Amino acid sequence: MSVGDVTTTNGGPERLSLGVAARLARYLQVLTQAKKEGKETVSSQELSEWTHVNSTQIRRDLSGFGKFGKRGVGYNVDSLVSQIRKILRTAGQHNIALFGAGHLGKAIASSDIFADHGFRVVAIFDANPKKVGTKVGQQTVRAVDDLRQTVLDEDIVVAVLAVPTTAAQPLADELVDAGVKIIFNYSEALLQVPPEVTVHTSSPAVDLLYALYFYLT
Amino acid sequence: MSVGDVTTTNGGPERLSLGVAARLARYLQVLTQAKKEGKETVSSQELSEWTHVNSTQIRRDLSGFGKFGKRGVGYNVDSLVSQIRKILRTAGQHNIALFGAGHLGKAIASSDIFADHGFRVVAIFDANPKKVGTKVGQQTVRAVDDLRQTVLDEDIVVAVLAVPTTAAQPLADELVDAGVKIIFNYSEALLQVPPEVTVHTSSPAVDLLYALYFYLT
Repeated sequence: MSVGDVTTTNGGPERLSLGVAARLARYLQVLTQAKKEGKETVSSQELSEWTHVNSTQIRRDLSGFGKFGKRGVGYNVDSLVSQIRKILRTAGQHNIALFGAGHLGKAIASSDIFADHGFRVVAIFDANPKKVGTKVGQQTVRAVDDLRQTVLDEDIVVAVLAVPTTAAQPLADELVDAGVKIIFNYSEALLQVPPEVTVHTSSPAVDLLYALYFYLT
Repeated sequence: MSVGDVTTTNGGPERLSLGVAARLARYLQVLTQAKKEGKETVSSQELSEWTHVNSTQIRRDLSGFGKFGKRGVGYNVDSLVSQIRKILRTAGQHNIALFGAGHLGKAIASSDIFADHGFRVVAIFDANPKKVGTKVGQQTVRAVDDLRQTVLDEDIVVAVLAVPTTAAQPLADELVDAGVKIIFNYSEALLQVPPEVTVHTSSPAVDLLYALYFYLT
């Protein structure tokens, strides 16, 4: 995730900067995992090791909303998780539609990664008629024809695209028409969308190139 | 990907800053895709739309190594791709070992995302004896017992973990012992590794939380 990944169009006085929001989202992810692992407190040093943000920056970010770690004890995990969720306004449930019931789609549907943060996959679509009607986890795979009605009925704001690269742009066009505001693109397609829609393209190879550069040099 | 994702231990006079390296990796990814889509030239404006980096920054980064877009024509895609690969020193082939032959592992093995950038999956491992010996793409699934020998024989520097969260730390320990330098972690586990090893944890939910924040506010 990069601090430059999201272009914003509307502003507000209480809005976090891109950098702070990005870091808080990362703290939240590792704190949620620390909680699952049974940890009650964490130090800024531990947070730093897990997130690669330096610990001075972490202490500054957290003290900015009134959280101060106790020397030799650290931060209370539960309290920090609720506070960050409140600040990021992600305490609620958000409904996701997943496109593509192949290996990647199935991996996403069966993962806790989204569910742990309040994102619920409420519909899975596939373009292949043979897959429509089959089960993936709790969901029955739907035909893409049902897209518009499902987005409306299920109050979907996020679409996750686990489809072949060539299928991504036509699908994105339909999603924009149907009112979806955030597209999480796992394909390599260079999607064109209007400015009010946010596209996040997940590019594991980019992260790997970057990590490798520092290993090689 | 974040500019803070990788902690570096060794330095050098010709080394790019974290921010520049991160941006070059992103330019490379979208340029590679633009090339696949048959584009011969791209403008800084197009690069900006695809990467969410602003176009002034892009022009500055590219002019820094002698690339200047022609007004009304833009940058030559082929030439830019070779130049960035040279700068990032990723022109060669790098061998990956993939751990986990479940849905996610299969999705990774069948994707071009790594292959397009010179990363080749040369071995797939699974802890489940029933999966050992089965085929995933071109590869026969190996037993984790063969890890150390495979890392040595196949010159593996990168391990990709598509395993359950609870399996990730013991596996990371074995990988570190075997000499792997970069671990790409798709599980949620908070991995502990020595400082000379780089862990990148892929957290799609974090990116989603972050995108959602700017949609909600």
